[in-house]
Amino acid sequence: MRRKRGFASDNNAPVHPAVFRAMESVNTGHAIGYGDDPFTAGATEKVSALFGTDARVYFVFTGTGANVLSLGAAASHSWESVLCAETSHIQEDECGAPEKFTGNKLIPVEPVHGKLTPEGIERHLYGFGFEHHSQPRVISITQATELGTVYTTEEIRAITSLAHEKGLVVHMDGARIANAAASLGVSFSEMVTDAGVDILSFGGTKNGMMFGEAVIILNPSLDQGFKYIRKQGMQLASKMRYIAAQFDAYLENDLWLTNARHANQMARMLEKEVQAIPGINIIEPVQANGIFAVIPEKMIRPLQEEFFFYVMDERRSLVRWMTSWDTTEEDVISFSSLIREMLTR
Amino acid sequence: MRRKRGFASDNNAPVHPAVFRAMESVNTGHAIGYGDDPFTAGATEKVSALFGTDARVYFVFTGTGANVLSLGAAASHSWESVLCAETSHIQEDECGAPEKFTGNKLIPVEPVHGKLTPEGIERHLYGFGFEHHSQPRVISITQATELGTVYTTEEIRAITSLAHEKGLVVHMDGARIANAAASLGVSFSEMVTDAGVDILSFGGTKNGMMFGEAVIILNPSLDQGFKYIRKQGMQLASKMRYIAAQFDAYLENDLWLTNARHANQMARMLEKEVQAIPGINIIEPVQANGIFAVIPEKMIRPLQEEFFFYVMDERRSLVRWMTSWDTTEEDVISFSSLIREMLTR
Amino acid sequence: MRRKRGFASDNNAPVHPAVFRAMESVNTGHAIGYGDDPFTAGATEKVSALFGTDARVYFVFTGTGANVLSLGAAASHSWESVLCAETSHIQEDECGAPEKFTGNKLIPVEPVHGKLTPEGIERHLYGFGFEHHSQPRVISITQATELGTVYTTEEIRAITSLAHEKGLVVHMDGARIANAAASLGVSFSEMVTDAGVDILSFGGTKNGMMFGEAVIILNPSLDQGFKYIRKQGMQLASKMRYIAAQFDAYLENDLWLTNARHANQMARMLEKEVQAIPGINIIEPVQANGIFAVIPEKMIRPLQEEFFFYVMDERRSLVRWMTSWDTTEEDVISFSSLIREMLTR
Amino acid sequence: MRRKRGFASDNNAPVHPAVFRAMESVNTGHAIGYGDDPFTAGATEKVSALFGTDARVYFVFTGTGANVLSLGAAASHSWESVLCAETSHIQEDECGAPEKFTGNKLIPVEPVHGKLTPEGIERHLYGFGFEHHSQPRVISITQATELGTVYTTEEIRAITSLAHEKGLVVHMDGARIANAAASLGVSFSEMVTDAGVDILSFGGTKNGMMFGEAVIILNPSLDQGFKYIRKQGMQLASKMRYIAAQFDAYLENDLWLTNARHANQMARMLEKEVQAIPGINIIEPVQANGIFAVIPEKMIRPLQEEFFFYVMDERRSLVRWMTSWDTTEEDVISFSSLIREMLTR
Repeated sequence: MRRKRGFASDNNAPVHPAVFRAMESVNTGHAIGYGDDPFTAGATEKVSALFGTDARVYFVFTGTGANVLSLGAAASHSWESVLCAETSHIQEDECGAPEKFTGNKLIPVEPVHGKLTPEGIERHLYGFGFEHHSQPRVISITQATELGTVYTTEEIRAITSLAHEKGLVVHMDGARIANAAASLGVSFSEMVTDAGVDILSFGGTKNGMMFGEAVIILNPSLDQGFKYIRKQGMQLASKMRYIAAQFDAYLENDLWLTNARHANQMARMLEKEVQAIPGINIIEPVQANGIFAVIPEKMIRPLQEEFFFYVMDERRSLVRWMTSWDTTEEDVISFSSLIREMLTR
Repeated sequence: MRRKRGFASDNNAPVHPAVFRAMESVNTGHAIGYGDDPFTAGATEKVSALFGTDARVYFVFTGTGANVLSLGAAASHSWESVLCAETSHIQEDECGAPEKFTGNKLIPVEPVHGKLTPEGIERHLYGFGFEHHSQPRVISITQATELGTVYTTEEIRAITSLAHEKGLVVHMDGARIANAAASLGVSFSEMVTDAGVDILSFGGTKNGMMFGEAVIILNPSLDQGFKYIRKQGMQLASKMRYIAAQFDAYLENDLWLTNARHANQMARMLEKEVQAIPGINIIEPVQANGIFAVIPEKMIRPLQEEFFFYVMDERRSLVRWMTSWDTTEEDVISFSSLIREMLTR
Repeated sequence: MRRKRGFASDNNAPVHPAVFRAMESVNTGHAIGYGDDPFTAGATEKVSALFGTDARVYFVFTGTGANVLSLGAAASHSWESVLCAETSHIQEDECGAPEKFTGNKLIPVEPVHGKLTPEGIERHLYGFGFEHHSQPRVISITQATELGTVYTTEEIRAITSLAHEKGLVVHMDGARIANAAASLGVSFSEMVTDAGVDILSFGGTKNGMMFGEAVIILNPSLDQGFKYIRKQGMQLASKMRYIAAQFDAYLENDLWLTNARHANQMARMLEKEVQAIPGINIIEPVQANGIFAVIPEKMIRPLQEEFFFYVMDERRSLVRWMTSWDTTEEDVISFSSLIREMLTR
Repeated sequence: MRRKRGFASDNNAPVHPAVFRAMESVNTGHAIGYGDDPFTAGATEKVSALFGTDARVYFVFTGTGANVLSLGAAASHSWESVLCAETSHIQEDECGAPEKFTGNKLIPVEPVHGKLTPEGIERHLYGFGFEHHSQPRVISITQATELGTVYTTEEIRAITSLAHEKGLVVHMDGARIANAAASLGVSFSEMVTDAGVDILSFGGTKNGMMFGEAVIILNPSLDQGFKYIRKQGMQLASKMRYIAAQFDAYLENDLWLTNARHANQMARMLEKEVQAIPGINIIEPVQANGIFAVIPEKMIRPLQEEFFFYVMDERRSLVRWMTSWDTTEEDVISFSSLIREMLTR
């Protein structure tokens, strides 16, 4: 029988109690809709403070929404292109929402362990000024990556430097940005603002929130009517106070960091438990809260029956196991024990 | 000093306690993301049952999202057009999201008290088969309307009959559908399914929910890959259980009806209180939870300072006052007393 | 039996011999594609000179293409709106191409004899800065209008003044701009550049050319990457020299003016011939090369059998008769005689 | 001084005299606009006959237009994707027009000598039914390819078989389809219709025409309102007879074949002349009318000064030389002599 808990995705976890209580605390009286309320003002300021006083913060509903609207702001002309990793969420998992909404061309670039490199990017930087060619405009990186790896601050700087030198801007998909910051032990400000990122999708849903992400514009020249982009992109919440309250709690006492550290720690514990098991081959460095492993094909189905998880590539028997803020040591032990048992049966 | 409560919009009210408790009750353990969970299955069935067993139900985030995706499903070719009232939300208040997402042309039709009429519609039904002309495909009506009026079931039938006879389909924007059903004293099924509506935006946020609406496809031929439309339209929630739980509570014990009836009743009470005041001219029939009145221009600002509300048309000093599930008789008394006092000072 | 010649549309006429010869004259040797050739350079300069030295000229294929790309340049954000006459080509006859390509909302405004008025426009100038409302950005006027009328230079100025005062820009659909200029007896520069128009669709196909129109940007701030807009909009000709040659001949010795004057004169002759016939009711002032008349319903079909023409509104038996550069006095006489005969039979 | 003639592109050549004379022959009298004329009817039938009686033929303006509208017809839902070669025109040289118009995601696939292979395609055929992933729908191949190579009929069949088996359809970009058919010595019908292609961009501009291409729909289920797609896509010519006349002449007495054979022959002659020159490295099989060679970097500029041509990849000093219907043996001799002279100086 399938367990109630597992390693399918960090978005399978519930809402952290502190976040839930914050939502409850604003559930009284009237508040003007669409963000013109004191809760939103407060949360906006709190988020902004993490990234520097010039950061402009817009709450939206989903990670895909945050990414698509960010690209719409960064590559505001439909004839521009977005370079991204072949494995990126915007390329693989958003059903073409970026192209649909922005008209931009997405150019998949071969990554190394899920990360773009300046060399990989440069191969696609050509055709500037040539009207037949989509004009390279945005480099989009994901931190932590879709393969559970993390860019160092220096790696980010190398990409933003290249981008700015060539007249491009950099978008960061931060669906798991907390896990990355926790992994590197740096502040958001160091890893994002100071590292030269121009626009950020700041996620919280995978780390203890219910819904609601933020687009954070660090390069003010990209803030050309973003409030209209958000409304036209169907990402403007009427009862905004319930997103604001979540962010408020998420940032209070570094809840984001506590949650992310825990998830990362559980991933490393799981890594340690399974890496020694013959037949399990972890193929990406475990730097955040995800493990990517090639496992015996015949084991996939029975293991899924007890703990649901996703297969990334059927041909290679590549699977993904994610930990979350609520993963327990018992979860890890019972999962890894089951794997060991299955492989030594 | 501005009051904490007022008549600005029904979306300024908080979440109904029963809805909130339902969200809390699902906040435990893991649930597969994106709607593949038992809570979503249950709520989907519950909503569907209200509209007939063939109804297909898709949860989304916002009313604009529900409308735009519905139009995308109903007018699936960008060369088709959507007829709607000049005063409709899709024409006036969605920042062009329908055109952006669908490519369709919206054709504003002159309404009578916010309602489309067959005669008004027919004036725009031409150019069929003429490739230079956007092909008429959808008639979109709002129930209750943006002017606080309600279509009778017969009026809806007249429009759906005309539409189907001409090969068009009918979309209903039901952001305030509960208020309309309460006003008419009919079931959703009578007012929507049996009346021939093809696709519906089913709203709850304005009547006690936190966020989350549903697209309900009653004409199965319009369900061509709607799950992709929803994802590409950035309206797919990862932690869907928290929308499902809201709908579950909203339909339990007819909470939707209790809430809507109350809001309607408060609107009628307010109407009664203010209609006799010289200088207040209510210009639309009060059939749901909104009052549209022309008031003395010099009174607008001072009144807004105490009770915030929106001016619909500055030139005519036309204002809107909305009641909600949490409006109290005291709210109505204190607001109408203040108006009376201001006008007789 | 249907005649080979008629009054259906000015685009039914052939190419003027001088234009054709010019195309032949460039049909030798190689020329770099996509406009990087001396013929294009020459013709561009010649067109530009008509509108002032700052005018930027881009050749495209069709009138719809010129309009849509102009709107794309003028309302470069999809959340902006375009005000246009209810009877305008962009609203009625382009199959929604503007919405599809730009994402903009088109707002049809009630015209007076096909012309927008400042009063009509002002009723739609609201919601500035309100993110729920498409932001008014472009006023599009057609000169000569789709109803055969012509804006005076003063009328154009009144509209451009209003537009600029409110932060909007003005697009002119000049599919029949030559007929308008001939009618007013003014230069393009007076009627367009000096009158404050920001961007123009400059047509020639209806006045003796084969294909090819020009987008002329008079307000340089609207020229943000127009070459990419043209390519992405599928309006960049590879063998551009054959468009250039046409414009070259069209402007040589004021061929455009000779042609347009003749067409206008034929329209007035036709007006004179038919206005006295009982049963024929010309309902729009004949100011360019089109006649709009209400005629007996039973006469439409038999008349069309001999001279094809379009019915504008079946309910009112409103028909349109267009003259062109090649209409002869004999054409007018034989057509009007037939009408007279039919009505007095 | 730069020569008047060269090897830059087959679209630098003039219009073939027979095509020009045909345009002249229709330049008399009136013809109903937008294709409702006898010339268009005749040419449509003539083109259709080449591909089988079920072929539906729509004339458009440009190759990019033909490709984009074809994709719009083949992948009619914006959440679908198009697989194409990394080197394809739709991926590299249309400024993102496909994404802009269709909303589809384009997925670049690694080609072998410019050609897709079933193996390359299969690596991208996954995610069917998964709403997060753009649904694979179209495989687009170019015949002859952008690298001057030609798919054999068997290679085409292998791709269409794979496509149809998986529920996809195949688009062929036939900008140089005449060169391919001439190279293979097969009929269009064998190479396209019988080989299972679903929709075709049929080009003529690069082989003796002035402008005008055709979209040919071979799979009738893809013809869902194509006339509206064409109009909304700004590719409907008003004076269609001038496109029709060109196609008429182009197909008369196999002019297309004579022209293409000649161009191909000139390419092979040039290949023969230069392949023996030390320093010239032809890197793609010369199967149509293009030569792709890596040449000494320092020679590029001076050679371009005399004969203009395009550099495909600056890093590798890869250049492209195209022959056309009007290339002469003298052109080839003088060009190859110059190269030889430069390299042995």
